[in-house]
Amino acid sequence: MSRKYVFMFEEGNEKQRELLGGKGANLAGMTNLGLPVPPGFTVSTEACTRYYDDGRKIGADIEEQIFISLAKLEKKMGKKFGDPSDPLLVSVRSGSRASMPGMMDTILNLGLNDESVEGLAKKTGNPRFAYDSYRRFIQMFSDVVMEQEKAVYERILDDIKGKKGYKSDTDLTADDLKAIVKLFKDNYKKNQGADFPQDPKVQLIEATKAVFRSWDNPRANSYRRMNDIPYNWGTAVNIQSMVFGNKGETSGTGVAFTRNPSTGENKLYGEYLMNAQGEDVVAGIRTPKTIDDLKQQNPALFEQFVKITQTLEKHYKDMQDMEFTIEEGKLYMLQTRNGKRTAKAALKIAVDLVGEKMIDEQKAVLMIDPKSLDSLLHPQFEAAALKKESGAVIAKGLPASPGAACGKIAFTAERAQQMAEKGDKVVLVRLETSPEDIEGMYVSQGILTARGGMTSHAAVVARGMGTCCVAGCSDIVVDEEKKILKADGKTFKEGDYISLDGSTGYVYGKAINTVPASLSGDFGTIMQWADKYRVLKVRTNADTPADTARAVELGAEGIGLTRTEHMFFDADRITAMREMIVAKTVAEREKALLKLLPMQKKDFKGIYEALEGRPATIRFLDPPLHEFLPHTDEEIAALAKDMKLTFDELKATVESLHEFNPMLGHRGCRLAVTYPEIAVMQTRAVIEAAIEVNKEKGLNIVPEIMIPLVGEVRELKYVKDFVVKTADEIIAKSGVKLTYKVGTMIEVPRAAITADKIAEEAEFFSFGTNDLTQMTFGFSRDDAGKFLKDYYEKKIYESDPFAKVDFEGVGELIKLAVEKGKRVRKDIKLGICGEHGGDPASVEFCHNAGLSYVSCSPYRVPIARLAAAQANLRNPRKE
Amino acid sequence: MSRKYVFMFEEGNEKQRELLGGKGANLAGMTNLGLPVPPGFTVSTEACTRYYDDGRKIGADIEEQIFISLAKLEKKMGKKFGDPSDPLLVSVRSGSRASMPGMMDTILNLGLNDESVEGLAKKTGNPRFAYDSYRRFIQMFSDVVMEQEKAVYERILDDIKGKKGYKSDTDLTADDLKAIVKLFKDNYKKNQGADFPQDPKVQLIEATKAVFRSWDNPRANSYRRMNDIPYNWGTAVNIQSMVFGNKGETSGTGVAFTRNPSTGENKLYGEYLMNAQGEDVVAGIRTPKTIDDLKQQNPALFEQFVKITQTLEKHYKDMQDMEFTIEEGKLYMLQTRNGKRTAKAALKIAVDLVGEKMIDEQKAVLMIDPKSLDSLLHPQFEAAALKKESGAVIAKGLPASPGAACGKIAFTAERAQQMAEKGDKVVLVRLETSPEDIEGMYVSQGILTARGGMTSHAAVVARGMGTCCVAGCSDIVVDEEKKILKADGKTFKEGDYISLDGSTGYVYGKAINTVPASLSGDFGTIMQWADKYRVLKVRTNADTPADTARAVELGAEGIGLTRTEHMFFDADRITAMREMIVAKTVAEREKALLKLLPMQKKDFKGIYEALEGRPATIRFLDPPLHEFLPHTDEEIAALAKDMKLTFDELKATVESLHEFNPMLGHRGCRLAVTYPEIAVMQTRAVIEAAIEVNKEKGLNIVPEIMIPLVGEVRELKYVKDFVVKTADEIIAKSGVKLTYKVGTMIEVPRAAITADKIAEEAEFFSFGTNDLTQMTFGFSRDDAGKFLKDYYEKKIYESDPFAKVDFEGVGELIKLAVEKGKRVRKDIKLGICGEHGGDPASVEFCHNAGLSYVSCSPYRVPIARLAAAQANLRNPRKE
Repeated sequence: MSRKYVFMFEEGNEKQRELLGGKGANLAGMTNLGLPVPPGFTVSTEACTRYYDDGRKIGADIEEQIFISLAKLEKKMGKKFGDPSDPLLVSVRSGSRASMPGMMDTILNLGLNDESVEGLAKKTGNPRFAYDSYRRFIQMFSDVVMEQEKAVYERILDDIKGKKGYKSDTDLTADDLKAIVKLFKDNYKKNQGADFPQDPKVQLIEATKAVFRSWDNPRANSYRRMNDIPYNWGTAVNIQSMVFGNKGETSGTGVAFTRNPSTGENKLYGEYLMNAQGEDVVAGIRTPKTIDDLKQQNPALFEQFVKITQTLEKHYKDMQDMEFTIEEGKLYMLQTRNGKRTAKAALKIAVDLVGEKMIDEQKAVLMIDPKSLDSLLHPQFEAAALKKESGAVIAKGLPASPGAACGKIAFTAERAQQMAEKGDKVVLVRLETSPEDIEGMYVSQGILTARGGMTSHAAVVARGMGTCCVAGCSDIVVDEEKKILKADGKTFKEGDYISLDGSTGYVYGKAINTVPASLSGDFGTIMQWADKYRVLKVRTNADTPADTARAVELGAEGIGLTRTEHMFFDADRITAMREMIVAKTVAEREKALLKLLPMQKKDFKGIYEALEGRPATIRFLDPPLHEFLPHTDEEIAALAKDMKLTFDELKATVESLHEFNPMLGHRGCRLAVTYPEIAVMQTRAVIEAAIEVNKEKGLNIVPEIMIPLVGEVRELKYVKDFVVKTADEIIAKSGVKLTYKVGTMIEVPRAAITADKIAEEAEFFSFGTNDLTQMTFGFSRDDAGKFLKDYYEKKIYESDPFAKVDFEGVGELIKLAVEKGKRVRKDIKLGICGEHGGDPASVEFCHNAGLSYVSCSPYRVPIARLAAAQANLRNPRKE
Repeated sequence: MSRKYVFMFEEGNEKQRELLGGKGANLAGMTNLGLPVPPGFTVSTEACTRYYDDGRKIGADIEEQIFISLAKLEKKMGKKFGDPSDPLLVSVRSGSRASMPGMMDTILNLGLNDESVEGLAKKTGNPRFAYDSYRRFIQMFSDVVMEQEKAVYERILDDIKGKKGYKSDTDLTADDLKAIVKLFKDNYKKNQGADFPQDPKVQLIEATKAVFRSWDNPRANSYRRMNDIPYNWGTAVNIQSMVFGNKGETSGTGVAFTRNPSTGENKLYGEYLMNAQGEDVVAGIRTPKTIDDLKQQNPALFEQFVKITQTLEKHYKDMQDMEFTIEEGKLYMLQTRNGKRTAKAALKIAVDLVGEKMIDEQKAVLMIDPKSLDSLLHPQFEAAALKKESGAVIAKGLPASPGAACGKIAFTAERAQQMAEKGDKVVLVRLETSPEDIEGMYVSQGILTARGGMTSHAAVVARGMGTCCVAGCSDIVVDEEKKILKADGKTFKEGDYISLDGSTGYVYGKAINTVPASLSGDFGTIMQWADKYRVLKVRTNADTPADTARAVELGAEGIGLTRTEHMFFDADRITAMREMIVAKTVAEREKALLKLLPMQKKDFKGIYEALEGRPATIRFLDPPLHEFLPHTDEEIAALAKDMKLTFDELKATVESLHEFNPMLGHRGCRLAVTYPEIAVMQTRAVIEAAIEVNKEKGLNIVPEIMIPLVGEVRELKYVKDFVVKTADEIIAKSGVKLTYKVGTMIEVPRAAITADKIAEEAEFFSFGTNDLTQMTFGFSRDDAGKFLKDYYEKKIYESDPFAKVDFEGVGELIKLAVEKGKRVRKDIKLGICGEHGGDPASVEFCHNAGLSYVSCSPYRVPIARLAAAQANLRNPRKE
């Protein structure tokens, strides 16, 4: 016997989201609650999967089941599908497990044809209603099923209205609509080369296929990718007997929320239109009434509706978003679902529901989408200002780092600093940023780049700083020499105002006021609950005392990654750094390093103080040395002069440091293997700073020294021996006690594979998932942007492996390393410090893999805390 | 109780090489055979390991055991160590498991001091002998144990000889030698700041430490690395009672081989000197006599010696290299070991020993060092010509591809072609080579580059072609513009002769005649036996019909890797290739590809024909497209003109293809994902060529299409779908049957980790260990040269992971992929096609890992065949 693919509403229940989709499960749920739901049935998500497996065909067995259910529906309704005198009409709607914009939405009035429209007119005694329904059906079918151009139908409608001098659709008479139906059908034929299908069964199957097809359209695919919805879930199709909101002035249709989706206020909120079908409410042609008006208009019906909304909220234990229709004074419920809401509303609703004892804290923690917190943590545009200037969009780039920014344009980092010093708010605009821009980036409100992807230098650094950034904005042309930005036919000069929205990628050619983030009391409450239920610690990636302090405010429990090299790009430091690089002997190198020592020490003291005793993992010098040297002949000549070298000497050094693949070059611990004196200096800075801060502030800082890019235990051992010798000497000399740890990053595949050996020397592992992802996949994030879009389009990858841990490949390596590491060193501390540490799905992976902590940029700390709590609530860790 | 670290010769046996080292085990063996071996004892290799573990100290327990054995030796010899009237004297020699030049060799006469030298003089009645022995001891001890400058002692000796007008050391009188001893001791004190040690026990322990220490000297380390000898083996120390070859004219010392080590001829071969100690024979001051002279001089002793040599050869079943001493007419054996021999001799000896029924075929196969075959497979310098010009060395680079070459210098690939066309023999000299040089490389006798390592482009391509190459020769200065090569103070112009030795790295500033490789009958015999005992198949990496034919001659059983991109660099093809790259639409791209199709097809037909029915794995386009475009503005301008593009257009294309890390960029199957039409064209060429050749030649070629750089099964599937569709259409249309396979390279770590998923689509795996090594370690072979030398010096890596598979890291990934692949597809074909396929240790790894075949460059095929046989003989595979 064939598998069951089609379910009458009363055969299902609201738990069957996977099989029936969200909409179908809830229709079944409402039916079972005895609410007034028009009868119907659901074609399951498994039928959709079959459709694709079968080469985009609906199997005969599935078609048969659809028609069997249709027959049951006919019986229940006492009407026949296609009956010329009293036809059964249905709506067809998509409905996947997760609510998904971008997919086919709705076809109404399906079942009408040239004959039955007449029957409907007679039966209802309302030919206007019948022809209005038919023209709507043709319109929706042509648009949604046949993918014809929508505008033509609107134009025909507008033409008639214009000729007749009508203001509104409701002015159209039955005859007008009859004429429109004819014009619509003509246009259909012109487009399709065939008559509008008259067989209702053909209409039904085509509509079902259209829903299945829409699962794979580009918008749906990109939504899925952004929201981690697997392609193989598929969508269900809901076929429901029609009720009509367009049967006259006692009919209507509307949507409502049990609470305010924008603020979270516990008050019924909604809109409706009389004598209308669903799409009229959305279309915005007529202004809908608020739900409060319904109380006046029909108090009994309103009371019934309120009771239903309360039943639903209590039943689903969450704010509900409902669709309803009133047919000749009778109320029908067409849909209910947990309502979408702003992040702010989500927090309020969750906290309120706990207060109302409808849910417990755990449920409240699970209700909040961790990613949504992002929008609460950064400055936003003032709503009124944004509304006013919404037409000022001049370009759209990648939403690389969230928040809103408004300021004067600067085209160089240096200029940005100068302008900021004068008190200007600055937006830094560059083709792309480089490490030397770091200070200019730091003082800017926002960063806009023409090139680079979501993981370009600008994007990564901006996210780290919590600064708004729009990256890879190919809509703009930047001439850095002439200091000109062109976009949307306009030219902007240095000092002109622009505004950026780092959450959407929009660039505005005007100043739009921003307001700072406000972390309401509900935010604090949820975070407090989250901390109660998580076991995974959350640390931060921070390179400065200011970033550290901000992260601690946001709940960071320590530092998981301090990149020491970022400290070397300051103007006064890079000189000493360059002296170190061009040094020809160990003695010369040590002399230059001695200049860097007090600076590094000062950095570390500042960071320790901001941490107030929390642990700090400090990564030793990582990037290849050529990053600290200029590359053009002009710059080299200037620097050579400063450094009292000949041009040829410096040029030779720059050339000798050139690498074919810098990602796979002389960097990480390889630098310390060649120049152990660098590690010695950094050890001194780390240890001396800790001793001094512990003494001065009465703290007990335990520094964790992290050796990067290890692939072989002997290279770790080699560097570690220098670290330990240096540290122990300093500690012995200081006469005080200091505990410190030495560990490594696991970011080279070989390190993961030989983690058991490495754990013999490493007291902790921190998974550097950025590099580990690059090397495991064999592509560099700087280069992959060019071809990854093909991979998404062709559905080879469903998500960005640099944003969400690739569970199958990189994840396997992490699990292998965890297992091998723990086998050798039971109490090994395990963390992650790549970009992934702030991604909720990746945080859940880390929880399940048994890591001790995740570390992420300061503004992602709350997200990680919440995600960690949710992970533990879903899969409690046995410690 | 302490572990036993010291063994009297009679306590050991010749099987204990690991514990006693080769020399110690054989001394024990000879002692047990009842041969005249001066008594002594061996300090084990474990004592050496302990020495390093204890921080370069000899433990008190080991010292105690040494002195206990010394007491036994005193008893046996009836003499006391340091006895002023009749001292026991000993020799101290190193001896590791494998014979290892570069380590400390020998100290003789240890135990002498100012007092006992007098006793020795009296006891022997030979003061000249006594003082000669003492001065030799001081000299060796100062040099070897104290690492003083050797030349000073030679100078003192020469001064005296000069003053006295002596010609030879033997002219020195006892008084002369007494005076020399004094001068030697003065010099020792001046250098050491302390008197020459008079306590024999101190002498012994210091000498023992010196042996241990020498295990870690740079020469020993580099020898170990080249010969895959693990650092942790350690060396033993042999302490043996002295017999004296310098006691007068009835004493002497010599070395002998049971067969000729140069030709393999079965005839005793050796040299000796009367009235001499060991080092005199080696030093070459006096001309030694041949062993045949001994027959004349002392027939009885000669007969005894011949008998002993026969006993030893029969016992060890291999050609022996022996040291002996005659003390006052009595013969002593000081050492025996399996003798080093030339590759040619090795083959002859092995085949002869089988003929003599001394060993069986398996043993013969195991006796040949596979690496040594290399020297037989390439042209060599004429021995006489080389001897004459050996002083003409002008530089030394890396021995990147073996063989000898002689020709006129060309500084560009183009010029090399022109000169070759005129019939000149050419040596191509470049700073470094690039893919565009390929044709010039092909016509050259040898290639010399100033830059690049053992795995640079020049080195890899030259090895592939079997062309002699010296790479990374930093001794030379190449000015490509001025067409000048400077080295050793000389200047060479285009057309000047130079000669290269690709096996040693020497560059000669003259023409030196070469002779072609001669594969003697013994070679064929051994190869035939090897084929009998191996299960691992051996294929070749070949890109042209010529290379393929050569590889088949050398025993290749098919092609494991054809790199299709090498075919695109020819002048007539690169144009079409470039048109393909700058194409803006699929149609334009297809048009350019259509031009390439007949060329590729012709290539494949040629290769199939050369294979005569053997299988061929053809890898689809792999390198990033920018490799096919010029990069300087000048070249771009010229090409733009040719291609009828504007400079800006072409420049923009070049820039858009720029990659930060080309190794991790848009290459491999990623190209085919973006441009499936490339894979379609290549499929057409592969399949159409196979159909035609099968028809024309009555063959049954089964092409194997290999998709490179796969990291995710869906990308393989995506490309494979195009391949299969194209291939099946062509086959169906042709009306003949053709079997083909589609598989992938496993060269990205993620592919190994997800091999079970990939095996669902791939019919075969070929491990691309070059890239797999790069990505697993996270370093690029082009860049790693800069820091790997530090890694070797610091003993972080013991061998080059690009030459020998890194068993611990990369090897684990291979094993994982084999296991996962076989689990899903039982009959999956597994091969390796990296540089490692020709490395014997890696071949053994592949055998043990259960691979089906290895693939290597043509000239390495015999090496791989032999290594595969040895692997199976050592560890027979249960099929």
